[in-house]
Amino acid sequence: MKFAVLLSGCGVYDGSEIHEAVMTLLAIDKNNCEYEIFAPNISQYHVINHLTGEAMQEKRNVLVEAARIARGKIKPVVEYKALDFDGLILPGGFGVVKNLCTYAIDGINMKVDKVVEKAVIETHAAHKPIGALCIAPVLIAKILGDVEITIGTDPETASTIRSLGARHRNTSATEIAVDYKNKIVSAPCYMICTRISEIAESADKVVKAMIELAEAKS
Amino acid sequence: MKFAVLLSGCGVYDGSEIHEAVMTLLAIDKNNCEYEIFAPNISQYHVINHLTGEAMQEKRNVLVEAARIARGKIKPVVEYKALDFDGLILPGGFGVVKNLCTYAIDGINMKVDKVVEKAVIETHAAHKPIGALCIAPVLIAKILGDVEITIGTDPETASTIRSLGARHRNTSATEIAVDYKNKIVSAPCYMICTRISEIAESADKVVKAMIELAEAKS
Repeated sequence: MKFAVLLSGCGVYDGSEIHEAVMTLLAIDKNNCEYEIFAPNISQYHVINHLTGEAMQEKRNVLVEAARIARGKIKPVVEYKALDFDGLILPGGFGVVKNLCTYAIDGINMKVDKVVEKAVIETHAAHKPIGALCIAPVLIAKILGDVEITIGTDPETASTIRSLGARHRNTSATEIAVDYKNKIVSAPCYMICTRISEIAESADKVVKAMIELAEAKS
Repeated sequence: MKFAVLLSGCGVYDGSEIHEAVMTLLAIDKNNCEYEIFAPNISQYHVINHLTGEAMQEKRNVLVEAARIARGKIKPVVEYKALDFDGLILPGGFGVVKNLCTYAIDGINMKVDKVVEKAVIETHAAHKPIGALCIAPVLIAKILGDVEITIGTDPETASTIRSLGARHRNTSATEIAVDYKNKIVSAPCYMICTRISEIAESADKVVKAMIELAEAKS
């Protein structure tokens, strides 16, 4: 099987959460599947100095920075075709809600990157599984509406998810939520987890559930 | 036990190789040890666009970029004290040979960052284990001289290591080399490995060997 991994930059505060992204790649490889990595070819919302937490006066490109995690093997998400893959996985990090959509800035009135939106809609329409870690389920709720997902237990985010027409299920650190009908697998990861080994465990559970969903007749 | 991880930026071509860095953290955590992350507070040698492989007209700081891998929890290496840790681990990536030392630019005539040099010498003098992944053993050979290490099988790099007064042992993808006398553990990682699961396996072997060395009477 072959999964597409959709990144949003490189670094938890303005891009993809690096541990979640890398553990997703590891989980796919350990389960004897292949991966291709994608990211939108757009400017980051901003650049955060990860030492101080403050915004920097710089411009960076999401695809170019995500290429760091991908060791250069990455494609613009506009080239993603759902039919070429057995599923699509989105690791978390603020990049999901600053670059792929604007939830971190605009809240419930968020805008979604059109190419990312198309990728998610196509994957869902093709009855292929979608995995979403950490805060990424918010984006899935915004795009697909009536699905069951988890971001852990954070009441405000869970409330947003319900406002978007989706159902939220509370989960503990390394638990996952599986919406069998819509083939959505989600996990709280660093919304709750405090150890990197918990991220490895979560990503592995997500990938295993996606493999099962991909094998099931649609 | 508690290990210090020394990073050199964030991204294989101008900083720490991200998979090796993250797998090092995972291996430490999985083996029920703790880690603290360090990097030198210096400018990167340059910034490489990881999509095109070309240099960019930008300046970035090694500590600030390494903070992305560390999720902000990182200290300047000048604060590292060997006595506070059970060992020091250096993941690979071109950052080791562009930022921590200048092997990638100056070859055998490389210069070494003075603070990094002091950290390695102090750790060795305190009879604590040092782990070095991928290209990082070249830096250890430059600083410590007569130690046994591996960077895999690359003849040119192995020859440099011998010119520096160290011994090179050829190894295969997930093999490690252990210099018991000097407590140096090295592994070729992406000098040979092609799969991220091999990096996870290598990092786990390195950490387990370091734990054994740290437990042994010095």
